[in-house]
Formats: sequence, C-alpha cells, structure tokens
Amino acid sequence: MIGKIRNLLSEKGLDAFLVTNLINVRYLTGFTGSNGQVLITRDRAVFMSDFRYKLQARQEVSDSFEVIIYSSYLQELSKLLKDSSISSLGLEGNHVSVSSFENLKKKLEGVELVPLDGVVEDLRIIKTPEELELIRKSQEINHRLFWEIMNFIEPGKMTERDVAIEIEYLAKKLGADDVSFKPIVASGPHSALPHAKPRDVIIAPNEVLLLDFGVFYRGYASDMTRTVWVGSKPTEDFLEIYNIVLDAQEMVEEEARVGMTNIEIDAIARNYISAQGFGEHFGHGLGHGIGLEIHEAPYFSNRASEYVLKGGEVFTVEPGIYLDGRFGVRIEDMVYADSRSGALELITRTTKNINELKVE
Amino acid sequence: MIGKIRNLLSEKGLDAFLVTNLINVRYLTGFTGSNGQVLITRDRAVFMSDFRYKLQARQEVSDSFEVIIYSSYLQELSKLLKDSSISSLGLEGNHVSVSSFENLKKKLEGVELVPLDGVVEDLRIIKTPEELELIRKSQEINHRLFWEIMNFIEPGKMTERDVAIEIEYLAKKLGADDVSFKPIVASGPHSALPHAKPRDVIIAPNEVLLLDFGVFYRGYASDMTRTVWVGSKPTEDFLEIYNIVLDAQEMVEEEARVGMTNIEIDAIARNYISAQGFGEHFGHGLGHGIGLEIHEAPYFSNRASEYVLKGGEVFTVEPGIYLDGRFGVRIEDMVYADSRSGALELITRTTKNINELKVE
Repeated sequence: MIGKIRNLLSEKGLDAFLVTNLINVRYLTGFTGSNGQVLITRDRAVFMSDFRYKLQARQEVSDSFEVIIYSSYLQELSKLLKDSSISSLGLEGNHVSVSSFENLKKKLEGVELVPLDGVVEDLRIIKTPEELELIRKSQEINHRLFWEIMNFIEPGKMTERDVAIEIEYLAKKLGADDVSFKPIVASGPHSALPHAKPRDVIIAPNEVLLLDFGVFYRGYASDMTRTVWVGSKPTEDFLEIYNIVLDAQEMVEEEARVGMTNIEIDAIARNYISAQGFGEHFGHGLGHGIGLEIHEAPYFSNRASEYVLKGGEVFTVEPGIYLDGRFGVRIEDMVYADSRSGALELITRTTKNINELKVE
Repeated sequence: MIGKIRNLLSEKGLDAFLVTNLINVRYLTGFTGSNGQVLITRDRAVFMSDFRYKLQARQEVSDSFEVIIYSSYLQELSKLLKDSSISSLGLEGNHVSVSSFENLKKKLEGVELVPLDGVVEDLRIIKTPEELELIRKSQEINHRLFWEIMNFIEPGKMTERDVAIEIEYLAKKLGADDVSFKPIVASGPHSALPHAKPRDVIIAPNEVLLLDFGVFYRGYASDMTRTVWVGSKPTEDFLEIYNIVLDAQEMVEEEARVGMTNIEIDAIARNYISAQGFGEHFGHGLGHGIGLEIHEAPYFSNRASEYVLKGGEVFTVEPGIYLDGRFGVRIEDMVYADSRSGALELITRTTKNINELKVE
C-alpha cells in the first residue's frame, strides 16, 4: 500500500502524503488506538502517536513503518517535513477540517498543502486475502447470531426493541467486537421504512419481520438482512413481493461480472423490479462496499458516480420493495467479486428460503 | 439560542450562519435524524433535510424553525442565500472538511465563506433547565445500572469483558438509549491504565476493580467512575490512595465556585494530590463538560485554554492516582454549577464510602 501511495506522489508531483483519518491509519498500519497519524514520503513511512500508545504502537504497527512517539504532533510533523525537505504535502481533504487546515498552513510555513479526496479509501476497495478472511469470519458470527435471534423471538411476547437489545448483547457474547450498526428490527407496516428504528412495539403473529444487522470482527464489518414471517403461513401478498425481491437479488448474484459498472449491476435488480411494476417502491441503491466501515466505496446505485468492478471488491446486494402502510421486503447478502472467475461469490450462507424463515 | 447566534452575526458582520454538525443541529432544533442542516439569517431560521425525514422533521423540529424538505441540499442552500441576499456566510470551521469547503465555495459563488470554531458548542456549555433534567435522569439510570452490575459480578467467575457486555445490555434494559461510551472495567494492575480496554481476564478476589461507565438518555450523557474492592478487606495500600483521591475530589466539590477558572478548579485536586506526593501519578485533566456529547467544553485541566465558570455548566470531577504495575484509583461524579449559590451541586448520588463499595 505504501508503494501505491508513493506512485500517487509521483503522479501528483507531491513530496509526501499525510494520513490522519483513524480508519485509514488502521488500514495502513494495523494500529487501533484513538490517536495516530501516518506520513509517507518518497523514502520514509512513519507512524506517529503520543505516549499513551507507546506500547500499543509497538505491538500493533506493521514493520513497514518507523514508529515515533511525540509530545507535540505539530512540532514532530514540522520537524519530519524539514528533515526530509518536503515542500509539497498531500492530505486527506475529505477528513481534515477547514480549521485544522488553516492551522496546519500557519504551522507548516513554506510547505504547499494539497487536499486530495479518498486516496486511502480507494486502496481499501480491493480486499487482501487477510481482509477477506476477517470479513468471512465476521459474517460467520453474524450468521450464528441470526439463528440465535430467530430462536429467541417469541411472537406476542417481546418488542422490536427487546430483540434489538438481544442482538447487540449476543453479538458480543459470540465473539464480535460489537455490532457494526444499530440493528433494524421492523415488524408489520414498519418494515416498509428502509431505516426503521426499533420501537417499544410487540412483534405480533402473522406479520412481516425485517431483520437487518451485522457485527465487527477484528475491525471488519458484516451486514445481512433477512425478511422473515412471524407465524406458520405467509400471506400470498407477502410471498409475491418476497419472490420478486429474491429473484432480483439472485439475478444480480448470478449475472454481475467483473468489468461491469456499479450502475449496470444496480440495473440488473432495478430493471427486473420495475418490469414487475414495483420500480418506484425500490427507493434506495442496490448495495455498498464493506470492510473496515459498514458503508464504504464503491456504491451500487443508479445515482452513484461510475465505478467499474475490478475483482477483489466485497459489497452488499440488497434490493427491496417497500409498500407504504403495508409491509416491506429487503434481502441482503455480502458478495466477493472473484477476479479469477469474474463472477460474484456469496459470502453470506444464510438461507433465503422463506419456508425456513419463519418464527412461530 | 437563535437570538444568540444573531448577536454573533452582528458582531462578526455576517449575514448568516450555517450549522451542519448533527449534534449542533439537534441542540438547536431537536431533530435526531442522520441528515439535516440549519441556516440562521437576520430574519429567518431554517431547518433543512431530505424526503426521508419529512415526517420526523415535522414531529421533532422546534416551532422556531421553518422546515424545508429538499431534493438537493446545495441547490436549496444556494436558493435560500439568494432569496435573502446573503453575501457573507459563517460556517462551522471545526466540522466542515476542506473538500466540502472548496465545493461550497464553487457552488455558492459570490458568497464570502467565513469558518468559525465552536459557535454552537459555546452555547451548549450552559445547560437549560430541561437539559439539566435529562442529564439528572441519565445519571439516575446510570446509578441503578451501577448497583445492578455490583450485584451481577461474581469474583473468580467472570471476565472484565463479561461485565462490560452486561453493562451495555442492562443500560438499554433500564431505558437508556445506549451507553455513552465503551465501559471501562479494569481489575488489578490494569486499573492503573486510565483508558483500559476490558480484557478476557477473570476478575479475581482481593483486587481493585475500576468501573467507569455512563449512558445516553434522550441524547444526554452521564458518566461515573467508582473504584471498588473485590473481597471483604481492602489492603492498607489501596485505602491510603483511595482516601487521597476521595479527599481531592471532595475538596473540588466543596470549594469550587462560579468565577473561578477551569485551571484553578483543576488545581484544587492537583495541588492536594501533589502535596501528598502523588502529583506525577495524576496524568490527566480533572474533568470535562458533558451534555449531548460525553466530552464537551469546558475542559478542566492544567493544560486547557482558560475558561471562567459562569454557572449553568455540567461537568465531571474525576481525579485519579495510577500506580504502574500495582493499581489505580479514580472517582468521578457529575456536578452542576449553580449560578444562585455559586457552588457545585452533586448530580451523582452514588456512595463513595469504600465500605459500601465491595464485591464479595
């Protein structure tokens, strides 16, 4: 990754690049603490932090980096830049605030500061084998969590919020660092809200129940949605919509290929849902990249900026149909774009067969 | 609050101020969603969001604001500025990224953009009676949580991580929105690390146990630390340190007055601890403001920028002594600076009597 950032330095005619976003710092170095910066010049790669992280930095930071423990970040940075005769410095424009930028300008007199967007984020799109392994493990925990929750739910006896609290609790008990976002537990007509918050409302029999949750495992996120039926016999209405969403999703999983754009991949599901007459009820994008963040590049939607699938990406495939006042269905898997076969590989192995997705 | 921001507009010679930080938006309007902005001009106060929040904005946003639902934020903002003939716009320099700032500059041609730091944060320092009530409620839940956890712990049978998971679980069960930060559960020598992470290590009898946690209730944070003894008979070593920390803390709670500076207030505890010979073992600030964020202005330490206590602040008082490789003691309460009496009022009512703080 350091090499790739150095290529960018040459390309942009910069002497060095400064990484301050903590997720990007973690990605490059492995450091998980709450304060740390990375400076990459043409011949040095430096990780910096304060005295609190002396031990942790030694344990976590990759050998590719020199580790410097400072008493003042700005003084240390200034010294490093002088020592390496840096006169132009790239930094993370989408993460550095205007005030910090102005402050840096004053403190680093004589250095041209060049804000760049998404430098490390772009590297993060293509997962390494080690990252893929951690993502698989994250989703494995999430899969076990899903079935524990299915067994936990007693229709008529517990609220959406009770279930959400149990999800957060069991995630950690099963070895996750934490949940990767606040769980969505939405029953009945509330399932028609794509970002429903769990309510103090009892989950009643003979209703739709939408469950959308994920965990972090050693920093890596998982994310899965299953729409299940509370009771023994789903209504015809529900089954019709369920099958349209499922077909749309499986089409994407089967037909998407390396070389297609994010917009074309989104269109596989969107065109099918539209052809079935529900286009206006699929009001969000098809999916998003996932890794150290629950939502990260690339984004799959008809409004995203174009991205060509290269192989190595991990992302979600999550079409949905939301019928206001009635119910919503969303089905979400995680997939890996395999550069050898050019096809998508399913990371999520949880069933989508509605006959196996009943809570009674 | 709108009036106070308008005063600032006059003072700084600005036509309008734009608030984009979500916590500051929540503070001004009551809105709790994930996308919203506030524009305050000399004669208008506008809250803006997208279609997803149409209903929620109507339910939550205070009557003092017009509500506008946009399809494009930048187009709407541009239109609003034109309609009100705004030629200079203040914005949150500590929250707006360099890239967003450059983008705004392009899109809002002809408008001078002026980054200002901490405008709303400064207003948030002095709590309203409604805020104080929510903070009290938050700490009440935290107090109940503390005793449930004291009863839950079985020495020799559970790990620090088990206890941390239980804290997060019970917080929600007791009606909190969530914990206000990841709980610190640190036993034995680990208690000497001020920001210890819970480990998979059994909490053993005859050890120190440091518990530091808080909850959010309707957005408002609480924060409390108690250092307890696992077993029936604390060691003399421990009691000596415990009593120094407790004395230091109670001195602050009794002696601090409106009109004193944050640095003078910090010094009450710091000087006492130093006089006892442990100054170098109290390596952090005395406390921090608390409200919609767990850490917010003002900060009480010997390195903070000067702040004079005005009355109306809520903050923590949390001196500590950390003996490397042996144990640490920290005791933390929340206090309210009462502008009528000029003295501090304790919000935290949990005992600090070590004889009542034993887990057996």
